[in-house]
Amino acid sequence: MNFVGSHILSVSQFDRRAVERVFDVADQMLPYAHRQLVTRVLEGAILGNMFFEPSTRTRVSFGSAWNLLGGEVRETTEIKASAIAKGESFYDTARVLSGYSDVIVMRHQQEGSVDEFAIASRVPVINGGDGANEHPSQALLDLYTIRKEMTDRGKDIDGLRIALVGDLRYGRAVHSLCKLLSLYSDLHFTLVSPPELSLSKDYIDGIKSAGHEVIESDELHSGIRHADILYVTRTQEERFPSQAEADRYKGLFRLNQSIYTEYCEPNTVIMHPLPRDSRGNANELDNDLNENPNLAIFRQTDNGVLVRMALFALILDVVDKVGATATKVSWYTAKRF
Amino acid sequence: MNFVGSHILSVSQFDRRAVERVFDVADQMLPYAHRQLVTRVLEGAILGNMFFEPSTRTRVSFGSAWNLLGGEVRETTEIKASAIAKGESFYDTARVLSGYSDVIVMRHQQEGSVDEFAIASRVPVINGGDGANEHPSQALLDLYTIRKEMTDRGKDIDGLRIALVGDLRYGRAVHSLCKLLSLYSDLHFTLVSPPELSLSKDYIDGIKSAGHEVIESDELHSGIRHADILYVTRTQEERFPSQAEADRYKGLFRLNQSIYTEYCEPNTVIMHPLPRDSRGNANELDNDLNENPNLAIFRQTDNGVLVRMALFALILDVVDKVGATATKVSWYTAKRF
Amino acid sequence: MNFVGSHILSVSQFDRRAVERVFDVADQMLPYAHRQLVTRVLEGAILGNMFFEPSTRTRVSFGSAWNLLGGEVRETTEIKASAIAKGESFYDTARVLSGYSDVIVMRHQQEGSVDEFAIASRVPVINGGDGANEHPSQALLDLYTIRKEMTDRGKDIDGLRIALVGDLRYGRAVHSLCKLLSLYSDLHFTLVSPPELSLSKDYIDGIKSAGHEVIESDELHSGIRHADILYVTRTQEERFPSQAEADRYKGLFRLNQSIYTEYCEPNTVIMHPLPRDSRGNANELDNDLNENPNLAIFRQTDNGVLVRMALFALILDVVDKVGATATKVSWYTAKRF
Repeated sequence: MNFVGSHILSVSQFDRRAVERVFDVADQMLPYAHRQLVTRVLEGAILGNMFFEPSTRTRVSFGSAWNLLGGEVRETTEIKASAIAKGESFYDTARVLSGYSDVIVMRHQQEGSVDEFAIASRVPVINGGDGANEHPSQALLDLYTIRKEMTDRGKDIDGLRIALVGDLRYGRAVHSLCKLLSLYSDLHFTLVSPPELSLSKDYIDGIKSAGHEVIESDELHSGIRHADILYVTRTQEERFPSQAEADRYKGLFRLNQSIYTEYCEPNTVIMHPLPRDSRGNANELDNDLNENPNLAIFRQTDNGVLVRMALFALILDVVDKVGATATKVSWYTAKRF
Repeated sequence: MNFVGSHILSVSQFDRRAVERVFDVADQMLPYAHRQLVTRVLEGAILGNMFFEPSTRTRVSFGSAWNLLGGEVRETTEIKASAIAKGESFYDTARVLSGYSDVIVMRHQQEGSVDEFAIASRVPVINGGDGANEHPSQALLDLYTIRKEMTDRGKDIDGLRIALVGDLRYGRAVHSLCKLLSLYSDLHFTLVSPPELSLSKDYIDGIKSAGHEVIESDELHSGIRHADILYVTRTQEERFPSQAEADRYKGLFRLNQSIYTEYCEPNTVIMHPLPRDSRGNANELDNDLNENPNLAIFRQTDNGVLVRMALFALILDVVDKVGATATKVSWYTAKRF
Repeated sequence: MNFVGSHILSVSQFDRRAVERVFDVADQMLPYAHRQLVTRVLEGAILGNMFFEPSTRTRVSFGSAWNLLGGEVRETTEIKASAIAKGESFYDTARVLSGYSDVIVMRHQQEGSVDEFAIASRVPVINGGDGANEHPSQALLDLYTIRKEMTDRGKDIDGLRIALVGDLRYGRAVHSLCKLLSLYSDLHFTLVSPPELSLSKDYIDGIKSAGHEVIESDELHSGIRHADILYVTRTQEERFPSQAEADRYKGLFRLNQSIYTEYCEPNTVIMHPLPRDSRGNANELDNDLNENPNLAIFRQTDNGVLVRMALFALILDVVDKVGATATKVSWYTAKRF
């Protein structure tokens, strides 16, 4: 895969080598994200951060990643007042907006919208999430986190034992992660969900045909035994036909410290694509896990900045130039990481 | 006209010499907008991009133009939560906000609001659109585009034959463009609209008294013959008393490639202030024109960045300093233009 | 008080020495805010300007202050689409967002929310207003303005005679200002309000126990005699049980030029936390005062930028480095101040 000038629309674009390339560059971004060094490599470059579906976390993460490389961000945070609402085609929107920036990150609730947009755009487009379809940078940051956590524990992604827990039917993050994980060797998937929210047969077949083991379960305690990684998800209530329907599945699988202690191995890593639903009727990942050093959920979001910096640097072909303008940070920096 | 420190509120401020000055500076901005060079001439300067009426295109265009000169942008994207909604006068809003930035671009749906704001502002104000009244940078970018397209075809604005098509009654862009065109010599206007949406007598009288020819028509095919420029507009449905009323006029004049081929001269330039309404019942400019090299609608929006950069540089008196800090762009740049 | 790396959550954190330190640094920020000098001391630093309750003035003021120090701003302008609305805890939001920036300014309508957020944040947090509770930078800019205006008139804060006028019950700005003023010596407070909107006994006791004089009045003319400072407030209608209830108190105390001339001393300073309500039924501070040189309301908002720059510089420990990167402004600057 040649990154320079290319769109990032789907995890399907990535082979194992491309994934590793992103991760190696992400590793290089650490001193910048940790506020040890400042680079100005993209000084004067403009990101069009076009979120036609609102989002705080992903939008700010992409914007900060761009800022950390020295560039400026122009932003849209909703569709309400956009020309799309006045009957403008994605083609026109893309042609116009691509005249204002060097890269565009786009989120839109309509599946396939970002692909359509990218065809007409004159600058590289990154899919920031198109409905239930794709959100490739989320999958990349999840896999990058898995790699880091495993390396810290003397292990590798090959041979990994992962338990996916919760709403596996509607969880976009789970689907994309499964695709990327399938690029590796000899993985063991345990899928823990209510039968109605199980991972679709297509995804399971894809995993199996890539040579991995899949076990399905509707029982939390047995499902999470022997896992290296627990990947827990919230009930994607916004994708259910009704709130009542969604509420039936909330709170079915709740992980807390005592269950963790009883059923998990000592170093099992806990992940979640966030936000976790901390309301009483949901609470799939209890707050009493917050001091557990194996809770990696905030390392995931921190890693998201690294992965997004890497994508920008690769697309704009500045990987080797990042360090050339580096200076030491001269202000107080919190010990955040 | 002295640009330094002045407000840009109306096309009426401009004489032909002032227009030409803007265009000359806009020409100089090309290597920056095309990402060949980076300038930091406004590094440390702040734009207050105050859109009290939502807009994506114009807002991002102004913001990007400012960023391309090296400055920072602070932004408002709607009026809902502003102090104006709590009974604050434009006077107070202007006095306060002008303490936060070096230039303010303001859009507000109320006609005359930006004039009122500018009186109290302590920094230069650019009208980014005040209801059906004025939107001077749009008219300037349209005229700049006409000049460029004519020059490319070995012609000039003087002597131009232009057909204005569609909703000429409510189209703010058309009104302002007519005023600017009237500064030139010996133009031939063909006004193509349903009688109910014709250009008002005041505007027609203004054009005629400036010595130009005006022909009115309610028939597309004959109206577009012999034109150098076709300026097509959408039905401004948001200004009609009702949606049903607006829908009566949608789709009356539709330009597509076969009509173009049959009735237009080979190099007739097609313009549109955008967004074009690509829904089936409107579609005033068909997508089958997208590959027609004479379709200049995206060159218009690209030119908007140049014209807005020029206005900023003129108002802040940095035209001669832009090049002093210029460096070559070191990242991948798409062949966009 | 050690500023470096600390949160700014409440005026209660400040003793007189800390206040004076902020003001001394604010004084040093003047040439940057007045666009005589540009500093890049925070180049590469990112502010998370997280306004979960909308605001134009405060949000843009904080953002501009950060930009004037050379940093970048990432922003949220409402809560609607945030993860908080999907059941995310402040703990999680804080942990995630603090991975994206160097400092966070947060506004949220829920009292105590910013405290909760700060506990989990890995970077310093400034309270930009949490409901009716605290808004410390507003109180600091008010006191800074009082100091400046008094100094200009050959006086000091010690011994000050101040009249607080209007809705003293719901006015958050008044409450915090009273706390800060209480740090000084021998002040004379006149509290002018309808009995139902009087300052609560707790605040009055606090002022008195700090050794100051308090006189209560429900009559404007006598209340404003002999004051050095008039601090006028609007009826905080959004905090009343109903609009009808709020409307009963609007317009009860209206200061205009003729009342000022008749009852105030010649150099009495007029302040207001803004926005002033200029609608006919309210109009607590008439527009005919706009040319009165003692009207300090826009000097207040200008001072807000200085005070916020000072807080940022102190928290990030760059006070002594601001000047090191200073260059002269090379663009046209309006005589704004």
